[in-house]
Amino acid sequence: MKLDKDLNILIVGLGLLGGSYALKLKEQGYKVSAIDTDRDTVGYARITKMVDYATSEVEEDIIKNSDLIIFALYPHIFVDWIEKYGSLIKKGTVITDVTGVKGIITEKIQNMLGENAEFIPAHPMAGREHLGVQNADPTMFEGANYIVVPTEKNTENGIEICINLGETLGFKRISRLSVEEHDNMIAFLSQLTHCIAVSLMCANPDERLCEFTGDSFRDLTRIADINDKMWSGLFLDNREQLLKEMDDYRSCFDKLYDYIKNNDKEGICEMMRLSSKRRKKFN
Amino acid sequence: MKLDKDLNILIVGLGLLGGSYALKLKEQGYKVSAIDTDRDTVGYARITKMVDYATSEVEEDIIKNSDLIIFALYPHIFVDWIEKYGSLIKKGTVITDVTGVKGIITEKIQNMLGENAEFIPAHPMAGREHLGVQNADPTMFEGANYIVVPTEKNTENGIEICINLGETLGFKRISRLSVEEHDNMIAFLSQLTHCIAVSLMCANPDERLCEFTGDSFRDLTRIADINDKMWSGLFLDNREQLLKEMDDYRSCFDKLYDYIKNNDKEGICEMMRLSSKRRKKFN
Repeated sequence: MKLDKDLNILIVGLGLLGGSYALKLKEQGYKVSAIDTDRDTVGYARITKMVDYATSEVEEDIIKNSDLIIFALYPHIFVDWIEKYGSLIKKGTVITDVTGVKGIITEKIQNMLGENAEFIPAHPMAGREHLGVQNADPTMFEGANYIVVPTEKNTENGIEICINLGETLGFKRISRLSVEEHDNMIAFLSQLTHCIAVSLMCANPDERLCEFTGDSFRDLTRIADINDKMWSGLFLDNREQLLKEMDDYRSCFDKLYDYIKNNDKEGICEMMRLSSKRRKKFN
Repeated sequence: MKLDKDLNILIVGLGLLGGSYALKLKEQGYKVSAIDTDRDTVGYARITKMVDYATSEVEEDIIKNSDLIIFALYPHIFVDWIEKYGSLIKKGTVITDVTGVKGIITEKIQNMLGENAEFIPAHPMAGREHLGVQNADPTMFEGANYIVVPTEKNTENGIEICINLGETLGFKRISRLSVEEHDNMIAFLSQLTHCIAVSLMCANPDERLCEFTGDSFRDLTRIADINDKMWSGLFLDNREQLLKEMDDYRSCFDKLYDYIKNNDKEGICEMMRLSSKRRKKFN
C-alpha cells in the first residue's frame, strides 16, 4: 500500500488536530471521511465541506471501506473505541494517531488489533490554545515536528505510509523514536513546561500583574491557559516519566536557589553560561 | 522645567537601552548627547549620527550643560559614577535611569545628590536578547510598560518629566510603584522567570532535544540565552525578594507534583482552572 489519492482515508475525532489533518489532506486532493460523536461538529464539517463525508454514527460501511484510519481522540477514548469497534476494521488497514502519550496506548491497541490491522503511533508536535474543529488550520504543521513511534510489530511499509502522511501534512522535520524515548522526551519538552507555566501562574494572586509584565512572563505563561481535562489526563498517563523530569528540573532550580542564597555569583554565572550555550542550538 | 526640545539631554551608557532611548529621542527632535566609556561604541554613535555629540570621556562641560541625564548603566556602575562625578552635575538637573532593581541604588543615589539634583527612578520593561548599541531600536518601547518609581524625596514636577519621557519614548502603559512594590514585582515577573528558564535549560543534557521541540519549550526558554554578568548581578541585588518569589513558586510546583504523584486528577484540574482564569487577563 502507498499513500496515494485512491485511498479512502477516515479521520476519527474531528477536533483541532483531526480537523487540521482533514483540511490539509483535502487541500492536497485526498479522499477524506470523518466520524465525530458531536453532532454540531458533524454539522459544521458538512456545511463547510471540509471532508467528503461526515457522520456522528460509527457506520460499519465507512469503517470497512477505509484504507487508512487516523485517530485524533483522547488516549482512553481511542483505546475504548478500538475495543468496541476494532473488529469492524478490514484486514490490511493502516492505523495511526495523534496521541501525546504512547506507552499507555500502544501495546493495548496493537494487541487488540492483532494481525488484522497495523497501528503505527505518531505524534504531531503542534497545537493551538483553542481547541475545536472551528480552529482547525491546514497550515498548522508548517515548521513543526512530527514523530513516528514504531514498535517491533510494525512493518517498513506501514512506517513509510506514516512518514509520507507527515510529509503530506507539511511537517518540517520527521523523526523516529521508540515508545519509551518518545514518552521521556514529551515528559520533558511538553508536560514539564506546562507544569511550570501552571505553577508560575498560580504562584502570585496580585491582580495588577498584567499592568507591569514584560515579554518574558508573557512567553512563559502563554500555555498556562490550558485545557484541564485533556492535560490532566496526559500528565497522569505519563506519570512516572513526568515525575522524573519534574525531579531533575527541581534539582536545577534548587541549585540556582542555593547559589543566590549563598551570594555565589560564579555559581549563578556558570549555570547561565550552560543555559545560554544549550539554548543557542534551538535558534 | 518641562520636557521640551530646548533641554540638553545626556545619556550615560550607550548600550541597547541607552541607544534605543537616544534613537527615539532624536527621532522626536530632541537634543541628545551621550557618554560611553567604550571607545568603539562612541565611534559607532558618531559615524551613524545617532546622537548630536558622543564622547568616551566624562567631560565636565557636557555634564554641567545637561538639564536631564538618563543613566543606562549596571546598578553598581551607576552608583560609582555618581560617587565620582555627581558633584559636576548642576543644580536643578533631573536624573532618571533604566535600572532593573531599585532598592539597592535609590537611597544611595538620592543621598549622594542631596539637594543638588533630583533623581526619579524609572524602569522601562523592554529589552532584547542581544545587547549593545548596534541592536538599539527606537521602536523597542511600543506596546511595553514603563514604571516610574518615585520616593518621598521627589517633586511632582520631577515625576511629571519622568512620565513625559516615558510617553515620548512611546511606551504603551506608564505606571507608578514604590521602590518596594517595584522590586517585589520585578522579582516575580522578570527575575523568577529567568531563574525558571535557566533551570529548565540546565535540566536535560540531551543533544537531540531541539529536533523534537514544539513551541511551548521554545517559548519557555527564549530568555535562557542570558547575559550572565548582568543578570547574576540583578539577582543578587534583589536577593531577598527573589528568594521569596522562588519559594512561593516552588510551593505551587511541589503541590502540582504531589497531585500528580497521588493520581489526584481533580487537584491537577483545579490548579489548571485557576491558572487559565488568571492567564486570560493577560491577553
